[in-house]
Amino acid sequence: MKTAVLKFGGSSLADSAQIKKATDIIKSDPARRFVVCSAPGKRFDDDIKVTDMLLMCYKKSAKGEEFEAELEAVKDRFKEIIDDLGVNFDLEQEFKVIKEDMKAGATQGYVLSRGEYLNAKIIAAYLGYNFVDAKDCIHFDAKGILEASYTNASLKENLAGLENAVIPGFYGAGPKGDILTFSRGGSDITGSLVAKAIGADVYENWTDVSGLLAADPKIIDNPRTVNYISYRELRTLSYMGATVLHADAVYPVNEAGITVNIRNTNDPENPGTMIVSKLPSEREKHTITGVAGRKGLSVIQAEKIMVSDEAGFTAIILDIFKAYQVPFEQCLTGIDTVTVIIRADYFRENKEELLKAIEDQVHPDTLFVRENLAMIAVVGESDADYVGSTVAILGAVSAAGIELNTINQGAGSLNLIIGVEEKDYENAIRAIYNSIQR
Amino acid sequence: MKTAVLKFGGSSLADSAQIKKATDIIKSDPARRFVVCSAPGKRFDDDIKVTDMLLMCYKKSAKGEEFEAELEAVKDRFKEIIDDLGVNFDLEQEFKVIKEDMKAGATQGYVLSRGEYLNAKIIAAYLGYNFVDAKDCIHFDAKGILEASYTNASLKENLAGLENAVIPGFYGAGPKGDILTFSRGGSDITGSLVAKAIGADVYENWTDVSGLLAADPKIIDNPRTVNYISYRELRTLSYMGATVLHADAVYPVNEAGITVNIRNTNDPENPGTMIVSKLPSEREKHTITGVAGRKGLSVIQAEKIMVSDEAGFTAIILDIFKAYQVPFEQCLTGIDTVTVIIRADYFRENKEELLKAIEDQVHPDTLFVRENLAMIAVVGESDADYVGSTVAILGAVSAAGIELNTINQGAGSLNLIIGVEEKDYENAIRAIYNSIQR
Repeated sequence: MKTAVLKFGGSSLADSAQIKKATDIIKSDPARRFVVCSAPGKRFDDDIKVTDMLLMCYKKSAKGEEFEAELEAVKDRFKEIIDDLGVNFDLEQEFKVIKEDMKAGATQGYVLSRGEYLNAKIIAAYLGYNFVDAKDCIHFDAKGILEASYTNASLKENLAGLENAVIPGFYGAGPKGDILTFSRGGSDITGSLVAKAIGADVYENWTDVSGLLAADPKIIDNPRTVNYISYRELRTLSYMGATVLHADAVYPVNEAGITVNIRNTNDPENPGTMIVSKLPSEREKHTITGVAGRKGLSVIQAEKIMVSDEAGFTAIILDIFKAYQVPFEQCLTGIDTVTVIIRADYFRENKEELLKAIEDQVHPDTLFVRENLAMIAVVGESDADYVGSTVAILGAVSAAGIELNTINQGAGSLNLIIGVEEKDYENAIRAIYNSIQR
Repeated sequence: MKTAVLKFGGSSLADSAQIKKATDIIKSDPARRFVVCSAPGKRFDDDIKVTDMLLMCYKKSAKGEEFEAELEAVKDRFKEIIDDLGVNFDLEQEFKVIKEDMKAGATQGYVLSRGEYLNAKIIAAYLGYNFVDAKDCIHFDAKGILEASYTNASLKENLAGLENAVIPGFYGAGPKGDILTFSRGGSDITGSLVAKAIGADVYENWTDVSGLLAADPKIIDNPRTVNYISYRELRTLSYMGATVLHADAVYPVNEAGITVNIRNTNDPENPGTMIVSKLPSEREKHTITGVAGRKGLSVIQAEKIMVSDEAGFTAIILDIFKAYQVPFEQCLTGIDTVTVIIRADYFRENKEELLKAIEDQVHPDTLFVRENLAMIAVVGESDADYVGSTVAILGAVSAAGIELNTINQGAGSLNLIIGVEEKDYENAIRAIYNSIQR
């Protein structure tokens, strides 16, 4: 039998109506045995997510202020869910424990994680599934870094014999049993770790969009949804700012070769986006998969005649960036030139010192800085003619009257990264997106 | 009054007929005051250059064998020149000294340099110009490295008061007065150093072609001659294998901002190629200046998911190349990938060790090597639409059915470097050249 791990986001579990949609989805397929839950999210635009409500409680309690009214509001949200679902759940007892723990100085991780904990427990009761607490199977070290091997073993141990389970997302426990959390959106990671540990056939990530969009909807009206994307392509687009899955959630499933399926709880018939190791040959033919970008970049270019004869020139420059802890986005060397693209905000405070270090250590003939740049990545892994795509894309940008600062296409498939001025960013995205919808 | 420094190559001074052409050129313009001479080159295809004849003499003398017959043949070449020119020159005395020095164990540098020495002395006598020996003004250190400042000062001192002078190219003296030479073609460097020292307005480099060709004539039939090219563009094309001027000859005049004019002794009316710091605005409008390339390259690509988060990844890889003394031609980083292009012959012997070092030190997710690649550079510094040019060039390559491995266009003007498979090299050059002749 196939096994699916499902993760539902906060908007998919915001109230009883959403939870019913989610549980209908779970029950519609016997493969859907393991469910990772977020805390209830926003029900409407101005609503407050349960996690944010808990954060307010924690802040008050940490300052020694009264937090009972705020905690009562959280309880009310869960009460409404229980009542609507008609599920038998002792909410009073749960909140009694939480209140006592908070009065005894509970940590931020503990307080923040109660939304996932309670939601998962309620949904388990409603489904008649087992509840498995994340604190028993997701492990962090003393610095809050995930202990990947230990976690994988723990998840296997806790889930192996179970027919089904609901597991709260977002948190786990530190070495002393204290509750620690991932960064926001971290339930994606929990789901990915569960999928890997139990060797799932698919990791379904249920959210409120029908998959990854091929471009930013703030720039492109109604961009198409991507049907298939490789981990590698997704990584590039995510790096550039496309948001669909927590960045750290990709690694465990990628490593295990498990397909991720981004689905919409509000449109369960939509097949969504499949994130895979290797694209199927029957994949819908698009020139490219997607486009994404990022502003706020600076370019530093050093030129030294005959640099190509000095094997160490580029390495010295990159070592300087390392020494000043300025990570770079890209490095392109030409004959006699080294071009390094960095985030302007990393560069700002060290700018003069860093440039001086380059002057002093490599004595370039020229050294220039260009600011207010943006970087745009275009990805596509099809076997199609990617040179033709590259030409079409660059042609479209050129035809739109946009100056390209840098062009970089590494060996392999379409993985084009171009640099443009910030002012041209949106127009360049539009030109690229429109050029590829053929 | 303007001052020109002229350098004549071996084919321009191969016999008395060529020397008369050269001296007619010199005398046609009073600005042409300083002349740097090569040794007589080939008069016909199967002829032997005087420098090669001297090399044979040296090899015999170094082994203790008889070299007199070979030296006599050199003397005969100069005797014919003197007789034809009708110049008064004591060749017997010169060769008596050379023979005695060789019997006393003269160095290779001394023997090899006698062609330039005698040719310059004869031409000085024929022109009625001063002869200034390079041994008194071109200085090398004990390792044979040019002493640039000392040489500049010496050239100034020896030439400043002179109305005119003929200076032999190719050689100079070491710290103890021993004769040392540049690498073959080094008379170009002598001319460049003289031009810089006396602050010439132009450095005329007279050879047997009417300038730099926009592409390799072995691939393109009758490529056009480049009218203007910047030092920087020339540097790129030279680096890629286009030969017109010794690579080290560019630096001194570039530094001093002196225009180099490549001219044809056999077609003195042809304006040739002007090599300049900054291209004039009236420059003939070509989409690009030239194209050149090189085969025998390998690509190494390392991929590590999330590499962009580790500032040191690329620096570590480049440090490994440095440690194995494998200079790289290009380095391109993408998101999660580092692509390094190197010459296959530098890589061959260290291949396994170098790849193992990368595996051990950076643990990439994938590491692949692709061999039998070629690199093609296309340069153009015009203010024209270089993005349009880039698109046209890539479009032409794509239309020719050629797969592009890598594309690199750094910040600034057109300076496109692409990677193709070796088998596609000639076709790619043709596609690019034809695309730009619009």
